[in-house]
Amino acid sequence: MNLYDLELSGNCYKVRLFAALAKIPLQIVAVDFLAGEHKQPPLINLNPWGEIPILADGDVVLRDSHAILVYLAAKYGDETWLPKDAAGMAQVVQWLSTSANEVQNGPGAARLVDKFGYAIDKADTLKRSAHILPLIDAHLSRHHWLAMERPTIADCAVMPYVALAQEGAVSLEPYPHIRRWIGRIKELPGFVPMPGI
Amino acid sequence: MNLYDLELSGNCYKVRLFAALAKIPLQIVAVDFLAGEHKQPPLINLNPWGEIPILADGDVVLRDSHAILVYLAAKYGDETWLPKDAAGMAQVVQWLSTSANEVQNGPGAARLVDKFGYAIDKADTLKRSAHILPLIDAHLSRHHWLAMERPTIADCAVMPYVALAQEGAVSLEPYPHIRRWIGRIKELPGFVPMPGI
Repeated sequence: MNLYDLELSGNCYKVRLFAALAKIPLQIVAVDFLAGEHKQPPLINLNPWGEIPILADGDVVLRDSHAILVYLAAKYGDETWLPKDAAGMAQVVQWLSTSANEVQNGPGAARLVDKFGYAIDKADTLKRSAHILPLIDAHLSRHHWLAMERPTIADCAVMPYVALAQEGAVSLEPYPHIRRWIGRIKELPGFVPMPGI
Repeated sequence: MNLYDLELSGNCYKVRLFAALAKIPLQIVAVDFLAGEHKQPPLINLNPWGEIPILADGDVVLRDSHAILVYLAAKYGDETWLPKDAAGMAQVVQWLSTSANEVQNGPGAARLVDKFGYAIDKADTLKRSAHILPLIDAHLSRHHWLAMERPTIADCAVMPYVALAQEGAVSLEPYPHIRRWIGRIKELPGFVPMPGI
């Protein structure tokens, strides 16, 4: 099972982190991002979006970090990471949407500007960060984990770009519950870091 | 089962559409959006994000249209709408992420500017629309439906803000496969419209 990967990508790290925590073996295939390998064949044929991560497991080829987390949890993980019942599954999916939208376009995009020079409106990323981080912090003031009162793929999805926020000049200083939650994730058995985390 | 709803919201329409197609009865509770009812108790206690739709089904309270689609499909729908197997479920989830990020922040946000006067950078919404709509059109040039070669919650999630694109001055004229796909959805038994669709 191949993960087409970039070490500095928080989206790729979501998958590496979950696979490490759930003890799912992955073959990491480093993509030459600066050369635009993901924008050319053969990778563009695996993911027409021209993005990574991409997971290829036999005939199954998936783009989007959240879909990959769902696949790995449902196929190789146990139910603690992604509940099979409707209410539990939906509780986790709420956070996958938050990750895909508010976190990606807030702290995630702020980092793209500062660290990689993307032509994104920095003020907009800061505004979005200032909207979503207090909501996450307030949630974590009442819960140790984002969903189900235990670690799930929701934490693996949301944590990376939140923990990397300072690389976009977004401070986590005002958010003590977020900082403690990141600490709890780092203490999970099997945790792996990435540069900046 | 209550859906806290706004008729003009594409996110609320995703849920109304799916419930109609899957014949799942919903009690529609109209929210006074202009008065900010969703930003005040009791609704803000159901969803601290201060957004609608919100689904309340007994003890289960969910924010986020995509999580609500997953819940309704898994609890009350049949497996054709959301596969239970890992690869099928992940194929659908890919499109829920596309809906939450690229579609919401592209044609969805363009409409928020033009129709509701939101202070969002219109040029950014047009750039994002010009990125995602060709990808969706190309996908639909090879498939009749977004996932699984049949209607799923993926179509219910992505279609609304794509079909409403012209309300943000984003033309669907260059995207014949998208237009035909919208037509196919409109022909599904049980289809319900919303203003603009």
